[in-house]
Amino acid sequence: MPRLICEDDLDDLARGAAMLGTGGGGNPYVGKLLARAAIRQFGPVTLVRADEVPDDAVVVQSAMMGAPTVMVEKLPRGDEVVNAFATLEDYLGRKVTHVTCGEAGGINSTIPFVVAARLGLPLIDADGMGRAFPELQMLVPGMCGISATPMAIADEKGNTVLLRTVGNSWTERLARTATIEMGCTALIACYVMSGQQIRETMVLDTLSLCQDLGRLIREARSAHADPVQVVAERLDGRQIFRGRVIDINRRTETGFARGSAILSGLDQYVGSELVLDFQNEHLVAVRDGEVLASVPDLIMVLNAETAEPVTTEEVRYGFRVAVVAAPCDHRWRTPAGLALVGPRYFGYDFDYVPVEDRFPVEPVAK
Amino acid sequence: MPRLICEDDLDDLARGAAMLGTGGGGNPYVGKLLARAAIRQFGPVTLVRADEVPDDAVVVQSAMMGAPTVMVEKLPRGDEVVNAFATLEDYLGRKVTHVTCGEAGGINSTIPFVVAARLGLPLIDADGMGRAFPELQMLVPGMCGISATPMAIADEKGNTVLLRTVGNSWTERLARTATIEMGCTALIACYVMSGQQIRETMVLDTLSLCQDLGRLIREARSAHADPVQVVAERLDGRQIFRGRVIDINRRTETGFARGSAILSGLDQYVGSELVLDFQNEHLVAVRDGEVLASVPDLIMVLNAETAEPVTTEEVRYGFRVAVVAAPCDHRWRTPAGLALVGPRYFGYDFDYVPVEDRFPVEPVAK
Repeated sequence: MPRLICEDDLDDLARGAAMLGTGGGGNPYVGKLLARAAIRQFGPVTLVRADEVPDDAVVVQSAMMGAPTVMVEKLPRGDEVVNAFATLEDYLGRKVTHVTCGEAGGINSTIPFVVAARLGLPLIDADGMGRAFPELQMLVPGMCGISATPMAIADEKGNTVLLRTVGNSWTERLARTATIEMGCTALIACYVMSGQQIRETMVLDTLSLCQDLGRLIREARSAHADPVQVVAERLDGRQIFRGRVIDINRRTETGFARGSAILSGLDQYVGSELVLDFQNEHLVAVRDGEVLASVPDLIMVLNAETAEPVTTEEVRYGFRVAVVAAPCDHRWRTPAGLALVGPRYFGYDFDYVPVEDRFPVEPVAK
Repeated sequence: MPRLICEDDLDDLARGAAMLGTGGGGNPYVGKLLARAAIRQFGPVTLVRADEVPDDAVVVQSAMMGAPTVMVEKLPRGDEVVNAFATLEDYLGRKVTHVTCGEAGGINSTIPFVVAARLGLPLIDADGMGRAFPELQMLVPGMCGISATPMAIADEKGNTVLLRTVGNSWTERLARTATIEMGCTALIACYVMSGQQIRETMVLDTLSLCQDLGRLIREARSAHADPVQVVAERLDGRQIFRGRVIDINRRTETGFARGSAILSGLDQYVGSELVLDFQNEHLVAVRDGEVLASVPDLIMVLNAETAEPVTTEEVRYGFRVAVVAAPCDHRWRTPAGLALVGPRYFGYDFDYVPVEDRFPVEPVAK
């Protein structure tokens, strides 16, 4: 049954989304402010389950594209995302009936609320990844043969670009260069799908999961329980490290936030070092030369005490964090999935091993 | 009265166009082959004068965008330009009625024949510059307030991009990055205009002038006259140097062929050196530290004996050339024109002086 999302729901939702964003997906504070302003002005957003969407629906994904390092300095005006939708509708010659999310993330799970509120459209409780990934072709629908184009890109100046490509990797290339030229962030509308395609190819109930994660963290804090342990369990994940950030090397490069963070172990990890590489999202966690977790599994960095998710653009020297690894959507573990988002795609010379295989028993809680 | 352009007309036309291309505008040999193949397959092209175009015509410019250094290695398939037109028509919701040229140049005066022949559309005898310039905003229609967008870009792989921008400089930026990503060349359709706008803002009768220049060179060669002198007179230009290329520094950079050539003087210029800077087209000619000619005037490099135009991507060590400077369209000499295409726009710290003022009397012929 559809339910309404109001201003008060956004705290939990943005926090949980930032967790699934695995370091990327945009800043949750910025995302929350954008969604709050839109809901305040245009009213609550109707959230529908995928099984409530008619087969002949015209569903469009809404997202912010670019480098999270830039997103925190250059906020959207608010109407770019509407321009992107209008450009796409103009091309389609049909009205969009539903909005959904390309990925989970602090901005990319909240920006769809902006367009849903402004256009009065229902939002589908789903996303294309079950987490965040840095590139446009990295969606389960894309892996299942659905084209990211026609795709519209809009900037805060009023420029729009409409792409039609021969493949989703070309979409990524052309959209990335346009986004960089627009100032390293842009709002996009893409992956036009039917209701049936949504049900068959998307990761379902992501927004409910985000909200649930946010709620669990909030309640654990109030109950003086360990919120890190609570969310790790909710995601069937493992706490793989605790440490203090002792070095951070972050560059805004080729349109992404790229770099690595080095953590010095705390608690039972004293004497160890963990290196976290990222391209918007965390890609690989390596402890003393040994790979502990890698894409496509989720690698989440959380404040060690409060479980507040720490994104790659805001991690700083001195932060005390817990690192949680959790299983990805099962479709990413197929050969086709690993070709799109496995460690080798990102240039690493090792094969993917599921986090449950690396950590067959539940690790000891702190 | 409309007239038909056949295969046999293309030699003169491409040669004259390459001359007005002032080093850029694309390679005339490649352009001629493309136009010839299209006319052979689809029949002759109807050339109409601007005053024969109805006010409510839907005129679109056709051109190749990118670096001439790449264009000679990566030839178009032939249907990209049709894809670009179809993408633009799709957006406009109207059929294009006439084709015209964005600039004069070896490829950019011949590519419009390809689309005109393939789509059976009349071609208007005009261009947007009266020469070639490297960037999309550098058209008289643009200076007069006509938007370059909606604009379509198509590559040989089948990708298309449709731009709508807030200004022609943004069109240039976004189209340039898309073109670079597509492999440094792409086919474009832009500057949608009415018949009235064509008459008011375009440089008229350019294709006839190209054909005339080609014919004059051909006839002068047969008559053992000096073809360089003949074409210089036809354009009210001056032969400003003769020399041998002793150095050439050419890079494909930021999507352009950029660099400079150094000429060592011959005949009455022995002992002098001329430096020619270019960005696709020749920008500035400097003799022994003194500026002899600059944009927006035309700086043409011709084979010293045959007057064959030498483009910036094919100039080589040892070539013996004559350099001719000729007046540009009078609208480029206004403050608005010089802001768009004067030497300061290209980063030079001097003001434009018309070539007739620098060389008030006819120079002595060789």
